[in-house]
Amino acid sequence: MKIALAQLNYIVGDIEGNRKKILQTVLDARKQQAELVVFSELAICGYPPLDLLERGTFVESCVDAIHLLAIEIPEDTAVLVGGPEFNEHEEGKLLFNSAWLLQGGKVINTFRKSLLPTYDIFDEYRYFEPNRTFSLIELNGKKIAVTICEDLWDDQPMENRFSRSRLYTRHPLEEMAPEGPDLVINIAASPFAATRMEVKKQIFVEKARKHHLPVFMVNQVGANTELIFEGGSLAVGPDGSIHHQLALFEEDLYVTETDLTSPGEDAKIPDWARISMIHDALVLGVQDYFAKSGFKKATLGLSGGIDSAVTLAIAARALGSKNLHVLLMPSQYSSDHSIADSEQMARTLGIKYDILSIKDIFDLYREALQPVFGDREEDLAEENIQSRIRGTLLMALSNKLGNILLNTSNKSETAVGYGTLYGDMAGGLSVLGDVYKIDVYALARFINRDGEVIPENIITKPPSAELRPDQKDSDSLPDYETLDSVLELYIEKQLSASQIAAEGFDPQLVNRIVRMVNVNEYKRYQTPPILRISTKAFGVGRRIPIVGRY
Amino acid sequence: MKIALAQLNYIVGDIEGNRKKILQTVLDARKQQAELVVFSELAICGYPPLDLLERGTFVESCVDAIHLLAIEIPEDTAVLVGGPEFNEHEEGKLLFNSAWLLQGGKVINTFRKSLLPTYDIFDEYRYFEPNRTFSLIELNGKKIAVTICEDLWDDQPMENRFSRSRLYTRHPLEEMAPEGPDLVINIAASPFAATRMEVKKQIFVEKARKHHLPVFMVNQVGANTELIFEGGSLAVGPDGSIHHQLALFEEDLYVTETDLTSPGEDAKIPDWARISMIHDALVLGVQDYFAKSGFKKATLGLSGGIDSAVTLAIAARALGSKNLHVLLMPSQYSSDHSIADSEQMARTLGIKYDILSIKDIFDLYREALQPVFGDREEDLAEENIQSRIRGTLLMALSNKLGNILLNTSNKSETAVGYGTLYGDMAGGLSVLGDVYKIDVYALARFINRDGEVIPENIITKPPSAELRPDQKDSDSLPDYETLDSVLELYIEKQLSASQIAAEGFDPQLVNRIVRMVNVNEYKRYQTPPILRISTKAFGVGRRIPIVGRY
Repeated sequence: MKIALAQLNYIVGDIEGNRKKILQTVLDARKQQAELVVFSELAICGYPPLDLLERGTFVESCVDAIHLLAIEIPEDTAVLVGGPEFNEHEEGKLLFNSAWLLQGGKVINTFRKSLLPTYDIFDEYRYFEPNRTFSLIELNGKKIAVTICEDLWDDQPMENRFSRSRLYTRHPLEEMAPEGPDLVINIAASPFAATRMEVKKQIFVEKARKHHLPVFMVNQVGANTELIFEGGSLAVGPDGSIHHQLALFEEDLYVTETDLTSPGEDAKIPDWARISMIHDALVLGVQDYFAKSGFKKATLGLSGGIDSAVTLAIAARALGSKNLHVLLMPSQYSSDHSIADSEQMARTLGIKYDILSIKDIFDLYREALQPVFGDREEDLAEENIQSRIRGTLLMALSNKLGNILLNTSNKSETAVGYGTLYGDMAGGLSVLGDVYKIDVYALARFINRDGEVIPENIITKPPSAELRPDQKDSDSLPDYETLDSVLELYIEKQLSASQIAAEGFDPQLVNRIVRMVNVNEYKRYQTPPILRISTKAFGVGRRIPIVGRY
Repeated sequence: MKIALAQLNYIVGDIEGNRKKILQTVLDARKQQAELVVFSELAICGYPPLDLLERGTFVESCVDAIHLLAIEIPEDTAVLVGGPEFNEHEEGKLLFNSAWLLQGGKVINTFRKSLLPTYDIFDEYRYFEPNRTFSLIELNGKKIAVTICEDLWDDQPMENRFSRSRLYTRHPLEEMAPEGPDLVINIAASPFAATRMEVKKQIFVEKARKHHLPVFMVNQVGANTELIFEGGSLAVGPDGSIHHQLALFEEDLYVTETDLTSPGEDAKIPDWARISMIHDALVLGVQDYFAKSGFKKATLGLSGGIDSAVTLAIAARALGSKNLHVLLMPSQYSSDHSIADSEQMARTLGIKYDILSIKDIFDLYREALQPVFGDREEDLAEENIQSRIRGTLLMALSNKLGNILLNTSNKSETAVGYGTLYGDMAGGLSVLGDVYKIDVYALARFINRDGEVIPENIITKPPSAELRPDQKDSDSLPDYETLDSVLELYIEKQLSASQIAAEGFDPQLVNRIVRMVNVNEYKRYQTPPILRISTKAFGVGRRIPIVGRY
């Protein structure tokens, strides 16, 4: 049987647009003699639809669109497509997360997801009842075991969660195996995490090997707000060899015989380095944030530092230089090179910029606040005023010209609260908020790999917020190598302070860092959505009490 | 048997503080001859602990504290207390949400929660494995059915969720009933929603009546960030009569015989009106936000409008006038009465205030932005600059003097995006963000019930943002009666635009309002935590895609 793996980029909630895109792809796949065309999890509504699933009319529209699709597709082509399904039982959650099989003008079956991820950014048990019964389908003489994303992740080790073995008590493929399937299909919506690419692939390789079955995994591609889906759909042979991996970070369609016994039809997998993947993921994240919300133009504050420079380079790649208009906003504490470096970079990329000094406005704020401040010494309050003036100027440009403000904060400073709410923490989307400072430098080097986009001086000078005379990040923060390592153990690995110290870090320093992270939850609650590239990003996937003690 | 219902206010994560408070209460209850003292759900760590539950060391500390408590309590007193428990099985989630029974110096049993609410603000399946086996305990000759919060909500109608009957497929009390319990205990952490007070009570009344058993429900009291728990613990007789309701919005301890057959021992229930409950809930919400984070002082911008006036009155009640320092920040568009009314209110309450004009700063921003704006006409950009200047001044006061900024936005304007990000949408906590404008007026009347706190003119004048000459809310918004009704149907009831129009509203107006709500998700993503007083507040309980179409 010829199967087509259709890896598409959906817009969440755009049911009609998604249906048309699916239909067009079925027609394309049919030209390549595909008998079954497979689309990703919840393709009809895009993943994740979140609480739109709680609106009856939304789910009805999804179901209607799938039935319409069944009529629209050619009679001789079968389609497997993800979409929500109403639960017909009197008890339990209202929906199933289903794969719908369409053929001959109608819906001929649905397969329901059993394992509902409810951790990190996933909330599937919020909406869906788990499936508890399993059976194969027969299509064109082949017996197929249909699974939905997490259904094949039943063996996953419980990383960072004590030392337990398996998160789930049900094992869908094990339950279907006795019926003797000829192949396994997995429709997925599995978001990108730079360190998980190999782990992900191994899930499917091991399932194929264990059951001696070909496994076809179709992932979604594209970004929906903070979540980036890398695609990378797979055709894995029964020996566990990867016959084909679909494109990363772009739409792709692949048609193949389901019989993958001839080894190595296409075993080449692009050799993606971690930093280049992060780069491409962020570009896609920015691109889709704008394209899917109907915006074209962006702005940001170019400070002369590494974070805004890398953000600008990524934005230029995603949106085109002509859609960017940035501000350089020196104060009395800005160094000359900050302006010179920023101007150089804007000119290199051909990006429109204005230089607006904040000195006079800052002085006027201080004057206005004299009745409140009296003769108190300058402190963080004055530093924050400068940052908020810049935020106000950028938002003014944004409101007047329609350019969305990109936030330029990195994960290290977001973690320890080294940023000003409503100042440099403002923006519609945080591009680097899940990228540690050390990786921001690596991204800068990557961006400059074929020629200088980011001026060398921006990469090599010591980082500084320039909010008071001769300020350096190193005045108040440990070196970034140490800081980033401790943060990763605390945030991604969820180790305690004493467990981190046991890994060889100064206990006092660890306590100080952990405390900085904890007391700044209130700031992070109000940050823009952060493009997620790690296994634990700030935002919806990390839910820590703001008020509390621990 | 004598049972004590201990309704306490816990600090999330303060395991040692909570343990000491529990111990002290056991000693107090023992003086009243209590044989069993019952505490609320997850009392040892406070509810909701959120992702702290993913940290192994956190859960270990909870378990250790419960074992220590078992040793500390008197030998002749039994204690039932909520806390997380490690799942000893090889498969499944890592924890159970348990009630721990302590007696004679040790843990003698645990009872595990079966029904794990995973909707709205609840994410329990994120952390907990559901219990699937049931048994009673025998204590001092009584057989007790122990349940945990949602375990008794198995029959709840699926309000606003199509017309299905029951959310859960298991029914804990039904499964225990054949063993012949003498009483039912329910330990709970059930947050406040003004419209749900009667529904809640009925849950326990109906269970008591159906099984002819006394039901004892112990709720948590106090606020943890946005969630307010009202207490109101219950002793319900086997005939369904309420023998006693514990205090609302404060700690309370009640000792009674478990045999509630003598009718009407204390059937009086305070007659709480909806608005007075909302008022008291918000006061408690502000109080605990400050007390539990170690802050004392607050600030806000007093505009002369109803929202900031009501917020100030609530803050004064919660924190005391001496802990408030507010700013009056007139612009060229402010009316004289705005300042006069605000001064009058501050003087009435004895609150320190400063008047800082924003006119000169605003003019300087416009001058600075001339190179960017050119000769474009004034629009929303200029209005937002004024709002952001005020935000910057308030945050400057906050940073310099340590007063936390209270946000004064109401739910109606938050819903339709009638507010400025980083301007009037700034703050550490939103006091009125779950209160529709109509109810803000009702709160003002309630606050003035024994004398004028809020100047009458603030209540009666037409609402205006005063960001341009002669601006009125009614220029761009429908009247608040209509707006609030439509918003409630859309947000709380989750009806579609056409369903709302079918209730008798102008379809075009409904579409306009629904569209305003939808396009402003990005703003709400960045608002401060909002004190929750309804069944659907903006914030963690409402998860709508920012980027998408529907």
